Amino acid sequence: MLRRLLPLMMLTAAPALADDVTTFTLDNGMEVVVIEDHRAQAVVHMVWYKAGSADEPLGSSGVAHFLEHLMFKATDTMASGQLSAVVAANGGDDNAFTSYDYTAYFQRVAADRLDLMMQMEADRMNNLALTEDDITTERQVILEERAQRTENNPNAIAREQIRAALFMNHRYGLPIIGWEHEMRQLDMADVHAWYDTYYSPNDAILIVAGDVRPDEVLAMAQAHYGPIPSEPTLPARLRPEEPPQRAERRLIYADPRVSQPYLTRSYLAPERDPGDQTAAAALVYLAEVLGGSSFTSVLGEKLTFDTQTAIFTGAGYDGDTLDDGTFSLTVVPAEGISLQTAEAAMDTAIADFLTTGPEMAQMERIRTQLLASEIYAKDSVEGLARRYGAALSIGLSVQDVQDWPDVLQAVTAQEVLDAARALFNPDHAVTGWVVPSREEL
Amino acid sequence: MLRRLLPLMMLTAAPALADDVTTFTLDNGMEVVVIEDHRAQAVVHMVWYKAGSADEPLGSSGVAHFLEHLMFKATDTMASGQLSAVVAANGGDDNAFTSYDYTAYFQRVAADRLDLMMQMEADRMNNLALTEDDITTERQVILEERAQRTENNPNAIAREQIRAALFMNHRYGLPIIGWEHEMRQLDMADVHAWYDTYYSPNDAILIVAGDVRPDEVLAMAQAHYGPIPSEPTLPARLRPEEPPQRAERRLIYADPRVSQPYLTRSYLAPERDPGDQTAAAALVYLAEVLGGSSFTSVLGEKLTFDTQTAIFTGAGYDGDTLDDGTFSLTVVPAEGISLQTAEAAMDTAIADFLTTGPEMAQMERIRTQLLASEIYAKDSVEGLARRYGAALSIGLSVQDVQDWPDVLQAVTAQEVLDAARALFNPDHAVTGWVVPSREEL
Repeated sequence: MLRRLLPLMMLTAAPALADDVTTFTLDNGMEVVVIEDHRAQAVVHMVWYKAGSADEPLGSSGVAHFLEHLMFKATDTMASGQLSAVVAANGGDDNAFTSYDYTAYFQRVAADRLDLMMQMEADRMNNLALTEDDITTERQVILEERAQRTENNPNAIAREQIRAALFMNHRYGLPIIGWEHEMRQLDMADVHAWYDTYYSPNDAILIVAGDVRPDEVLAMAQAHYGPIPSEPTLPARLRPEEPPQRAERRLIYADPRVSQPYLTRSYLAPERDPGDQTAAAALVYLAEVLGGSSFTSVLGEKLTFDTQTAIFTGAGYDGDTLDDGTFSLTVVPAEGISLQTAEAAMDTAIADFLTTGPEMAQMERIRTQLLASEIYAKDSVEGLARRYGAALSIGLSVQDVQDWPDVLQAVTAQEVLDAARALFNPDHAVTGWVVPSREEL
Repeated sequence: MLRRLLPLMMLTAAPALADDVTTFTLDNGMEVVVIEDHRAQAVVHMVWYKAGSADEPLGSSGVAHFLEHLMFKATDTMASGQLSAVVAANGGDDNAFTSYDYTAYFQRVAADRLDLMMQMEADRMNNLALTEDDITTERQVILEERAQRTENNPNAIAREQIRAALFMNHRYGLPIIGWEHEMRQLDMADVHAWYDTYYSPNDAILIVAGDVRPDEVLAMAQAHYGPIPSEPTLPARLRPEEPPQRAERRLIYADPRVSQPYLTRSYLAPERDPGDQTAAAALVYLAEVLGGSSFTSVLGEKLTFDTQTAIFTGAGYDGDTLDDGTFSLTVVPAEGISLQTAEAAMDTAIADFLTTGPEMAQMERIRTQLLASEIYAKDSVEGLARRYGAALSIGLSVQDVQDWPDVLQAVTAQEVLDAARALFNPDHAVTGWVVPSREEL
């Protein structure tokens, strides 16, 4: 427990903090990553498939997420729901998630139950036994999920429309959950084509984190995952890239359920690249510099604090992606302030920033925050497992993950300014106004 | 020659005007359409493949058009360029074109050369013998074509960006010629996958128009195209459809080569559907009503003639498509008039129109024009052949083509108004401002 108590200032120099990671590759191509953490007798067991919604075939949006649901149905030897029931009966919990670039399954249990987890996860990687009834039932479930998460939420609809306008060619422009009209068409053939191609050891990464020893994990992985044949027709992961984006785009989403008009602008932004994470790290700072704190961030200070133009400002960067990610700005104008005025104020604040760059004090504040959050992150075994799984699924290496905190610490004010200047091209962005009705514009 | 001289008023009742069309289907699935026209001893021979740029695989935009170029290379028995040389030596001409929904090849020659045309066209349907050198050379040609047609033309770039914003899911949002970065990647494997799948008799329509007899054409077609095996893996023609479009979209394309700022708005519009062409016919009228003549059209009269707000107004409807087409409005403001003012004037004119609908005199003028142009169209054997080929390639029937003039004649003012009311949903449109520089806005 000692390292949790070290004072912040000492931590940069502490090599003992490097994660204790061992990697293997099984003969069938499955990657194995073991993260040792013996603080508690628990283990997190995850399988990540390097296939997400952006890998889906034309016209089959949502199939990655649909299969994620169906993976909890019966296999040749397990009943529907049995895996989760067994995990719960063993005092653990389990879940799954689908993203643009990957689909992942995990269980958290006592360390001595790892073998059982592998047995069940390997079973459903290879022996899923879906029925037409499963397809029909679960399709209703995902449609209902879409209704709840997207259709019932004007902000989610606005985000969906903005992404669709931002990406002209790349499948990041489609929602992970799928377009409703395509979800309705998903059938057994779509699901099986996806499962048979991607749910294969040579497309999977096994992450085991916790109170385990690498040699034991390897032996277990060989026993359970080793016999599954690799998929010879696994396609190269080449997705359609964006053409040059040459026109400044805007949209207005009007929905009576919008209680508070706001504007949000999304830019295409470079992602973290293997061996080359500096630009992405600079954008992490930029999001904090522009939209982090209401008091000290550029937008917070100028729009909220100084002029009361806005009641909220924010900035976000998502570069944990295989291809180009996004950088977003959001401004919620104060009562009586039009979106036009608020947007002009935002643009002025950014233009001013592009001449001055970040203040040193601000850089140091963020540097310290990032150092602290990197340290806190190590406290969660599940968080660590997710971090490695997500990174490896988007083409980063274990080394990239381990370098990331240092790359973050080394970012300079000039790099943040350079990243901002490269980022803020109006032709690479969509500005959305989200309003209760068009008449009020 | 008599029917060309008939006075206009008599023509609606003349059944002799129906095109003399005979259809067959070969055993291998190839459709054959013979249009008899014995006025001259000439023949137009066309093969239409029901595969265009909107059928291309993800990441391979431009492959349909690329293959169109490569089809003039060598086959097992013909040298590169030989087909066109033979056509020319026989006093004919030939060409090819690629669209969103089809790719077509045609020759126009003396009627007694038809057999030779079929022999050569059938040969390249099955025996194309491409070399790596062909790929390399012709890829440079299509890149150069893109440079000339698109990159050198700011209006073409603006159209490309607008289509990409208009279509959120459908492949109509991609340029027929392809995105440059994807064109550069097109290789022998891409071309052959396309050729092997789609250049098959069961995906092809043979159109022969001119001084021929159906039984002779059928015999020749059986001899030349009959032996080519059908393609068992030809996929169903299901393309990704648009999700609900829920946000009004705008873009600004700034390019110093733009000499005259203008605005153009594209709406998604219903296409001609088999057996149900009335809505499309109404949109043909609507384009004329709104943007046809500078003197009598709604936009021409209100923006150009009455107020000198604009120096040009136009409207266009493209519904000759397999899936949803487009309806576009264009306004070029007069000197000293801002785009904002011009757009507001356009919106007011359309809003006024939506309350009144078209004037009866205008409807009758357009009805007469359409009748005349339908009659003139019959004068061109090549035009007729194209009309049938294009229509059949987008899923219409011979009957639909023959019904079209009557459907057009039967459109009422109320149907035009209804079509306009359904069309002008701001959430289904992209408004583009094309300007020399953003600073002038």
